[in-house]
Amino acid sequence: MAQQHLDPTDPTATPVTGEALAGYLRAQATEFLRALRQHRETGATAQGGTEDSVDAARALRRSVRRISGSLHTFRPLLETDWSEGLRPELAWLSGTLSMEHAYEARLERLLLALHRLSGASGLPAQTAAASASPATVVSGRTAGLDTAPLKAAHGTSGPADTDRGNLTVGAAKAGALLERQLTLARTRAHSTALQALGSSRFHAVADKIAVLASEVPLTAAAPTTDLRPLAAAAEERLTDAVAALPLVTAGSPYNAEALVHGLSPDPAPHPQDAPWHQVRLLLRLHRYAREALHGTGGPGGPVDVRLLTAGQALDRHRDASEAAAAAAASARTPRIAPATAYALGVLHADQRHEVEAARFAFQQCWQKQTVRTS
Amino acid sequence: MAQQHLDPTDPTATPVTGEALAGYLRAQATEFLRALRQHRETGATAQGGTEDSVDAARALRRSVRRISGSLHTFRPLLETDWSEGLRPELAWLSGTLSMEHAYEARLERLLLALHRLSGASGLPAQTAAASASPATVVSGRTAGLDTAPLKAAHGTSGPADTDRGNLTVGAAKAGALLERQLTLARTRAHSTALQALGSSRFHAVADKIAVLASEVPLTAAAPTTDLRPLAAAAEERLTDAVAALPLVTAGSPYNAEALVHGLSPDPAPHPQDAPWHQVRLLLRLHRYAREALHGTGGPGGPVDVRLLTAGQALDRHRDASEAAAAAAASARTPRIAPATAYALGVLHADQRHEVEAARFAFQQCWQKQTVRTS
Repeated sequence: MAQQHLDPTDPTATPVTGEALAGYLRAQATEFLRALRQHRETGATAQGGTEDSVDAARALRRSVRRISGSLHTFRPLLETDWSEGLRPELAWLSGTLSMEHAYEARLERLLLALHRLSGASGLPAQTAAASASPATVVSGRTAGLDTAPLKAAHGTSGPADTDRGNLTVGAAKAGALLERQLTLARTRAHSTALQALGSSRFHAVADKIAVLASEVPLTAAAPTTDLRPLAAAAEERLTDAVAALPLVTAGSPYNAEALVHGLSPDPAPHPQDAPWHQVRLLLRLHRYAREALHGTGGPGGPVDVRLLTAGQALDRHRDASEAAAAAAASARTPRIAPATAYALGVLHADQRHEVEAARFAFQQCWQKQTVRTS
Repeated sequence: MAQQHLDPTDPTATPVTGEALAGYLRAQATEFLRALRQHRETGATAQGGTEDSVDAARALRRSVRRISGSLHTFRPLLETDWSEGLRPELAWLSGTLSMEHAYEARLERLLLALHRLSGASGLPAQTAAASASPATVVSGRTAGLDTAPLKAAHGTSGPADTDRGNLTVGAAKAGALLERQLTLARTRAHSTALQALGSSRFHAVADKIAVLASEVPLTAAAPTTDLRPLAAAAEERLTDAVAALPLVTAGSPYNAEALVHGLSPDPAPHPQDAPWHQVRLLLRLHRYAREALHGTGGPGGPVDVRLLTAGQALDRHRDASEAAAAAAASARTPRIAPATAYALGVLHADQRHEVEAARFAFQQCWQKQTVRTS
């Protein structure tokens, strides 16, 4: 299969048939089995994984998402009973396997943000501003994660310094609270994933994927059916969903839209985020459909940089949205100190600001993409 | 005096001498006396002013700033003893007269922000999102100020709704706390201003300004001295200060710079705001120097729209910076509820976001200005 761009609407292009889909599914199933073997060999424990087992878990999630997405997009080309039976199982597996990583990433994002918001506390403000700037300008992130300055802050503020130290102590307590809550959630997710991987439900899925690695249950017509109309339909669903996004607002910097209802009685996640989350999923389906068409999709294969950048903006949107919700949820913990709640409020707003920044980044990327391809 | 633009560096232009400065100062002194008469006639009370007395107070501040700024910029053309004696008195008067308005504007800004952040609380969240959007999109402001929904929120959240209503109650309590604290500060500022206007110190200033309205104490050389080098020096001080601002960062949307140190132990105001505040003052001095040169400066006179827009961005920067500091200060009130502190944290971050937005607006405006004039 050629690696170049295949326009699904170009009638002169060589047709790409169900055989290409079968090849893609076999490759992803093989990748799943390899990752599963690696995951077992690297021995994930109840305490959390080694670096290799983390890689293996990522590869498992990656292949499950691609098989699941292909079953969705190319549904008419696959045996109905088989694919309709497998799809909910893959959704269960994908959800179960992703939770541990999600909690871990969320905690890291929130602690990094608290670190940035606290400056290099303990130093005089001017020095702290000067030393922290290079790492935090533009990216809003620091390279390393070190919560020690947050935790040390309490010790360095003397009695004469109570007012000045108040909020810093709040940041330290907020960090400790988030760490406790999200680490507990992560540990539970880890146990759940381990249990899932040992369950008969999982073994049944793994058996089906093992069969898929050698034999893809295509319909009788599939080997000669053109994949491109189905891929084009996936792209159209994406385009329609993007067209419904408030991109004019998103493209106007500092529109202050993401924090609207930041204090509303409605619990997180914000309903305004849902269309963006939906576009994120549709973009992924579009990307996987292109992989199936182009015969790519391996971990080292070529990628469409524009789609990848747009997808990264939407990943950042999702991550910031969920981190903001986690900060808001922590602020509802009973009997926390006002300083802790204040820090969580600042943190929540900071992450909603990130949500807005991610929308802006997506709008910029998408606009360039449309200009370039139209 | 011609109304067109006079380039102070153009050697072929007709010189503008100390006589023009004398005319400008006489006009501003006359305006001060008119405003003072109006202020007395409209009868400001201890409870706060009528609309007319608010206008009169604004006109008083406006003329005091212009006289004070001209004494600074054109110092070499004025009798030293007279101007050096008057300048600190004008600074005292300007500061005293501005506090009441500042507290009032700060409270309005913070309550509007809380209102926006709370959505139309009391309605279901989806409805609230739909109904609040038109007023809050892009501008981030609502047309009217009504704190009733904030205050009613407590009553509408039933016992089964505690978790959902928690943050809204926080917004309501935060609003009530800010209203109490800033109204108290405003009332004190109002009393201080009334006392100042009745003091012998004020009468001495008013007498000096009354003399200024007919007789400006120029130096012997001033009537034939060109004003333009002094005006150019004021512009140069502005240009130098702008050049030292981090405009590259400010022009990159969502740089997340304004909220860095949002939780640092250093109390507000943020040291990073100071250079922007300084540019705001220098821009004002530049604008007044242009007014003196062009013979404008009356309330209905022509203005340089570009300078005005840049100045408005810097006013917004100052207002948001001080509002953010007020929210942080309120959060240090002893014995507040965690939900109140959380709401104040969100509010603080929201206003720091506004600070960042104002810097972006200034950068955009200044860049256009430079491109257009260079």
